[in-house]
Amino acid sequence: MARPFKIILGIDPGSQFTGFGAVKSDGDQVELLSYGVIAPPSNLPFNERIAIIAEEMEALLEKLRPDVTVVEKIFLGKNADSAFKLGHARGAVIAAAVRAESEVVEYATRIVKKGITGNGNATKEQVQLVLFAAMNLKAKAQADASDALALAFYHARNLEVRAKGMEL
Amino acid sequence: MARPFKIILGIDPGSQFTGFGAVKSDGDQVELLSYGVIAPPSNLPFNERIAIIAEEMEALLEKLRPDVTVVEKIFLGKNADSAFKLGHARGAVIAAAVRAESEVVEYATRIVKKGITGNGNATKEQVQLVLFAAMNLKAKAQADASDALALAFYHARNLEVRAKGMEL
Repeated sequence: MARPFKIILGIDPGSQFTGFGAVKSDGDQVELLSYGVIAPPSNLPFNERIAIIAEEMEALLEKLRPDVTVVEKIFLGKNADSAFKLGHARGAVIAAAVRAESEVVEYATRIVKKGITGNGNATKEQVQLVLFAAMNLKAKAQADASDALALAFYHARNLEVRAKGMEL
Repeated sequence: MARPFKIILGIDPGSQFTGFGAVKSDGDQVELLSYGVIAPPSNLPFNERIAIIAEEMEALLEKLRPDVTVVEKIFLGKNADSAFKLGHARGAVIAAAVRAESEVVEYATRIVKKGITGNGNATKEQVQLVLFAAMNLKAKAQADASDALALAFYHARNLEVRAKGMEL
C-alpha cells in the first residue's frame, strides 16, 4: 500500500453482537475513524443473523478499506455449542476480510489489555478509559464496540513502536 | 419461484473439505446436476481456507441458483476446537446461501440415511449405492461429495412425497 497511513479495523465477532472499531495511524498519531456494533435483529433465525453479519462486514470493508483487520483470538472453553455459534460469526467476518484483501491478524484479549493498560487483567472500563483518553473521545461505547476498538488501537500502537525500532 | 422444477444444493461443510451435490427435481424425477468437493490447498492458513470456501460457495450459488440449500445439521460432541473450526466453514457457507436468497434447510445425517436406505445407521457405501442407482450414476464420488449429494437427494424426495400428499 502506498498510503502514508494505515487503516486498522478491529472486530469482536459474535452471533448476537459483532463490535467494530476503526483507527487511522500515520505511525505516530492514532486517530479514531468509527466504532459501533453490528446487531442483527434478535428475532431473526441464526442463519439469517450470520448472513447479516457477513453483509455488514462487507459494507464496512468497502467503506473503510482497512490495511489490516484485527480479530479477537479466542481461547476455547469447554462449551462446544458456544464455540460452534461463535465460529459461524467469525467465519463470515474473516472470509469477508480476506476476500477484501485486508491482512488479518489475531490477538488474545489479555495481550491487548496488557498492551493498553499495562495489566492483562484490566477491566473493560479501565481499557475504555485509556482508549478514550488517548483518542480524545468523550462518548460512551457499547462493550463490544469498545473491545473492537481496543484491538485496532493496540495494533496501531504496536505498529508505531515497531516502526520506530523500539523494544516492545 | 415460477420454475416448474426445483434445484437443490446439498452442502457438507468442513474447513478442509466442503462437499457439494446438486439435483434438479420436477416433483417426480430427481436428476443429478453436479457434485464435488471444495478443497482449499491444505498448506494455506486457516483464515484463507475459509475465504476460499466462501468464494467457491458463491460461485456455486451463482451457477446453480438453487431454490434450496441443504446443510448437514450437526450434533455437537465435546470437542470445542473442532466445533469452532467447523463453525467457521459453516458460517461462510450459510451466509452466502442466505444472501443468494436460497432457502436454507438442515437435516441430521441419521434422518437422511434413514430416508434414503431405510436405516439410520447405514454406512456411507450403502447410501452411495442407493443414491447412484436412483440417479443412474456409475462414477465414484469422494465421501464429502456423496454426503452432500445425499442431503440434496433426500430433500428432493421429501418434497416429492409431500407434493403428492403421501404420509412420510
